Amino acid sequence: MKKSFGAKSLIFPMPVWVVGSYDKNGKPNAMTVAYGGVCCSDPPCVTVSLRKATYSYGSILSRKAFTVNVPSEAHIREADYFGIASGISEDKFAATGFTPVKSKLVDAPYIKEFPLILECKLAHTFELGRHTQFVGEIIDVKVDESVLAEDGGPDIEKVKPLIYATQTRSYYGIGQYLGQAYTIGNEIQK
Amino acid sequence: MKKSFGAKSLIFPMPVWVVGSYDKNGKPNAMTVAYGGVCCSDPPCVTVSLRKATYSYGSILSRKAFTVNVPSEAHIREADYFGIASGISEDKFAATGFTPVKSKLVDAPYIKEFPLILECKLAHTFELGRHTQFVGEIIDVKVDESVLAEDGGPDIEKVKPLIYATQTRSYYGIGQYLGQAYTIGNEIQK
Repeated sequence: MKKSFGAKSLIFPMPVWVVGSYDKNGKPNAMTVAYGGVCCSDPPCVTVSLRKATYSYGSILSRKAFTVNVPSEAHIREADYFGIASGISEDKFAATGFTPVKSKLVDAPYIKEFPLILECKLAHTFELGRHTQFVGEIIDVKVDESVLAEDGGPDIEKVKPLIYATQTRSYYGIGQYLGQAYTIGNEIQK
Repeated sequence: MKKSFGAKSLIFPMPVWVVGSYDKNGKPNAMTVAYGGVCCSDPPCVTVSLRKATYSYGSILSRKAFTVNVPSEAHIREADYFGIASGISEDKFAATGFTPVKSKLVDAPYIKEFPLILECKLAHTFELGRHTQFVGEIIDVKVDESVLAEDGGPDIEKVKPLIYATQTRSYYGIGQYLGQAYTIGNEIQK
């Protein structure tokens, strides 16, 4: 039996990603989002949704670029802080001691300490209501060599991304490997 | 040191969600996506991205509705099958034995066996390239009573959603609880 919860943005899982941007004076900012996802393979695109009240909103619109930075479990405090504090009143990089690296490809900073980052050009801006959805075309993906698997690709078990559980406002880690996609379901196909 | 992987949709984590829809003849279909995310809180909206070649693409456009169904770890084979098979040639509900439930709120079926489902009206359609992004306004969230926490809300540890690791095309479970959002980062704030 299913219980009705009404009209709300309640679904599992959500990511924990940190959006990097420069303001009009070139000050780097970082803001944590759980509203986002991959939205296209060609051109490769990712979305993040922000409220207009955020400092990053104006920065992304003016610079037409942002980065998406994936924190690891070890960065949970900083990732949470990037979502609590506002770039209007605080220098979040100074507070965390983290390093904004100026991208050579887009007009936005990425976070050196995070293991996997995307450099994005703003491709579309969609006004949806309380949130604005920014679609970023992914120009490059950069991954720390320390989180690469033997096959050379990024290893989710080493990246250890955070998962956001919206109802209880809590963070979870990645669990155990369960199976191979495009394989484990084959036995159902007649 | 970061290694460059070029322009690709490579990020962790991605969800594993199954999109439910009716075709023009009323046949229910289900299709697994990893491209999607929440995109707005008011009105509450969720996005899923599909290629035009999928059977669900035309169904969603014609019915102006879809559901998003969250499989649990126990449904990993069916969730994978829903992503492998095509609704053009197969009746995926017959093959899995799963039950399409006709929504009373939107013109789409949800999957009875999955613990958490969203009923969505198609709010926007954005052509992004190889994928089309469907933005659904969430009309209701329904959750199995068996996965509710003591506080009455859905418990991610009982829902046990799947995580998709894109690079290795593999499924993971939810890991351990790591901390409380809007709390654990407070110590950084001066």
